[in-house]
Amino acid sequence: MALTLPQNLLNALAERLGEHFSTAQAVREHHGRDESLYDPVLPDAVAYARSVEDVSAILQLCHAHRVPVIPYGSGSSLEGHLLAVHGGISLDVSLMDQVLSFQPEDLSITVQPGITRKALNEYLRASGLFFPIDPGADASIGGMCATRASGTNAVRYGTMRENVLGLNAVLADGRVLRSGSKAKKSSAGYDLARLFIGSEGTLGVISEVTLKLHPQPEAISAAVCSFPSVASAVQTVIETIQMGVAVARAELVDTLAIQALNRYAKLTLREAPTLFLEFHGSAASVAEQVGIVEELASANEGQGFEWATQQEERNRLWSARHNALYAFLQLKPGCRALSTDVCVPLSRLAECVVGAEQDLRKSYLPAPIFGHVGDGNFHVCLLLDPDSPEELAEAERLNHAIVHRALAAGGTCTGEHGVGLHKIDFLLEEHGEVAIDTMRAIKHALDPLGLMNPGKIFRRKGSETSTFA
Amino acid sequence: MALTLPQNLLNALAERLGEHFSTAQAVREHHGRDESLYDPVLPDAVAYARSVEDVSAILQLCHAHRVPVIPYGSGSSLEGHLLAVHGGISLDVSLMDQVLSFQPEDLSITVQPGITRKALNEYLRASGLFFPIDPGADASIGGMCATRASGTNAVRYGTMRENVLGLNAVLADGRVLRSGSKAKKSSAGYDLARLFIGSEGTLGVISEVTLKLHPQPEAISAAVCSFPSVASAVQTVIETIQMGVAVARAELVDTLAIQALNRYAKLTLREAPTLFLEFHGSAASVAEQVGIVEELASANEGQGFEWATQQEERNRLWSARHNALYAFLQLKPGCRALSTDVCVPLSRLAECVVGAEQDLRKSYLPAPIFGHVGDGNFHVCLLLDPDSPEELAEAERLNHAIVHRALAAGGTCTGEHGVGLHKIDFLLEEHGEVAIDTMRAIKHALDPLGLMNPGKIFRRKGSETSTFA
Repeated sequence: MALTLPQNLLNALAERLGEHFSTAQAVREHHGRDESLYDPVLPDAVAYARSVEDVSAILQLCHAHRVPVIPYGSGSSLEGHLLAVHGGISLDVSLMDQVLSFQPEDLSITVQPGITRKALNEYLRASGLFFPIDPGADASIGGMCATRASGTNAVRYGTMRENVLGLNAVLADGRVLRSGSKAKKSSAGYDLARLFIGSEGTLGVISEVTLKLHPQPEAISAAVCSFPSVASAVQTVIETIQMGVAVARAELVDTLAIQALNRYAKLTLREAPTLFLEFHGSAASVAEQVGIVEELASANEGQGFEWATQQEERNRLWSARHNALYAFLQLKPGCRALSTDVCVPLSRLAECVVGAEQDLRKSYLPAPIFGHVGDGNFHVCLLLDPDSPEELAEAERLNHAIVHRALAAGGTCTGEHGVGLHKIDFLLEEHGEVAIDTMRAIKHALDPLGLMNPGKIFRRKGSETSTFA
Repeated sequence: MALTLPQNLLNALAERLGEHFSTAQAVREHHGRDESLYDPVLPDAVAYARSVEDVSAILQLCHAHRVPVIPYGSGSSLEGHLLAVHGGISLDVSLMDQVLSFQPEDLSITVQPGITRKALNEYLRASGLFFPIDPGADASIGGMCATRASGTNAVRYGTMRENVLGLNAVLADGRVLRSGSKAKKSSAGYDLARLFIGSEGTLGVISEVTLKLHPQPEAISAAVCSFPSVASAVQTVIETIQMGVAVARAELVDTLAIQALNRYAKLTLREAPTLFLEFHGSAASVAEQVGIVEELASANEGQGFEWATQQEERNRLWSARHNALYAFLQLKPGCRALSTDVCVPLSRLAECVVGAEQDLRKSYLPAPIFGHVGDGNFHVCLLLDPDSPEELAEAERLNHAIVHRALAAGGTCTGEHGVGLHKIDFLLEEHGEVAIDTMRAIKHALDPLGLMNPGKIFRRKGSETSTFA
């Protein structure tokens, strides 16, 4: 799919960016891959922006030469977002990693898109505030906006959708769009910030983000509790949410996943379906929440509640949970992961998880189940040999069954990873043709030349039969 | 601005809708007004839809004849949204007021757009759940989506933006768009539901909405507390939010507003700047919140904390608060209200409210100040004689000063009322030309003939000099 980039574009980018522009094979290889199961597809060149002016200049040049642009943050996409399936330039914003302004009294902060969630929380450590959204990887804030990311804390604090006050984005032609404000709410016209959140780089390059922050809770208590079955663990979470307990984290990890975590992170968790729970609040309210959930868990035959109230113990627990993908990959040497990401209404969660379990029991692929069950979101991590067409076909068969069950239950094919290359057909099935046509019309209105991350979310016109998109 | 509607359109609508189509003067008058200070501008006819099929048929017919359509819910807009400034048909969805499905175990409900917030909560009363968004008027859910409404509970529960899981809308050409799902979160493509929330009828007619519900709190406690100044009342709220207290309502009512409420609702509140507060949670957590806020209030010279723990007392208090606009209109016989709606970062709230107070002190117009200060959102209700050009000019002068101060503080010109006719120029000032051009491009992509509620949010091309829009 590689293009031959016009020499005067190459010259202009090299002149503008100097050493921050590269066509070296190693740099292109680094930017043509992500954490999905796809083989890399390299961009023709990589441009590193250090400022919004750089982003705008790069986009203007690419626009003038009709060359595609793929925004790049930390490279942790799980859906092939970064693959240059139509060639073009990878626009890397990882050097734009600064805090632009911090408003502790407003519980907000304005950052460049390349700052990662861990670097942001490191910056905030002494402030008494934190930013809760935590996908597994140490993703960039720009990338987290682009995929509408969430993670373990979303059940209490919401997703990127709820935690961005405003953002700036550079459009395909290089103009800088401002959207949203620093106020907590607004009815001032179309919600362009929300449109860019989840747009996967297809509408422009997010260049500045104002985030909502939250006070670090006075008290935190984390626990693990094991259950006789995935169904009884899920039922405990459903009842917790329905009771109105504002649980901060409610993660399911199945037996195979526990085995992987034990091995990878040298833990000694009981090998059974397990909930990882966390409660935030005042000391009294945490104690109250804990009391309710212990009772619910015990009624669902939960056992061996182990509490981690010290920060060090908690960190160990959650760091293991965040490294789950890497732990799972160790289960099968040389494998890659196809991770499902369905999210369903809570009332249908148990049947969807149990259905997935039954599918897996009849398959030969190892596939731990884990996820943010407080939101109705769970992942099946299908581990396959990337060189085996049979294993790929088997993984896709299971993937389809899991997604179709979720859609039939009123759910979505993706709770937090995005569509990328892999869920284009599911998206159509989920929303129907009118919605996809509407998305395409919006894409065309903002990017008439189709240069922004083409081939992601929906197919580019005229490439309906492409391998990828 | 009236059109002469083509006779075959009139015939087709009459044939489809029978008695639910009207060109009677009284019906048109009812649909050409709202609660803004504008004189009515009548639509050419009114079509009542009883189903999504009706909505689609009406839009298809109007599309074929290139006739504008103005969606109509309960008529409680404050920004001229319902005025037929380019003529056309008022499409009234108030008869589409049914609950379509109720999923208590998922804390969600799917409704038609014409159901009002009070009717919805009446339906939910025995379920243990409630829908928190409460603009002053008994607005329709469709209209509340269209203006991205909020109200007194938003400080804890969010606005319509956070409380809609998914929605269906009929596009200008009659196609039905589905967007969102019944799952709590999703990364499945562009967030079309969020695009329609706040679109003020300019992108299509919202025809079905799935809402998030919340458990009715185990304990509720409400209080009024008066302060020596507006500044000290506001400071108390700022400190409450910054402490991380999840206050459910935090409303400021200034002295003039209290006088109006006392007179209108036969209350005996102390005539001083006052906070109306409410706390939700378990009995223990409410007690804890109350303790913290009493301490903060007292450090800010708050006095006379009066608690209302009985539902009847609380209802009396909040019903007075919700009827504030009607109470204020009694302060000046024959007046109309120009209500400002700025929302600013919390750290700038005190200076913005005090600045508005100082402006008002130098003016002869009566203007109570009140609002949702927990969100940084407050209203100045400028009471003017609609027949006096001088009073209108004075009200606009004050309005401009208040909005410019808010924008300079990083805020928005509208926290919850929407743009409508009155804030078109402020919108440009707030977001800049690139954002307005982007909104126009999206509008054009979804409604290329410009038929959906034309002249609202931004001016219709070619009518830059219109009185209205």
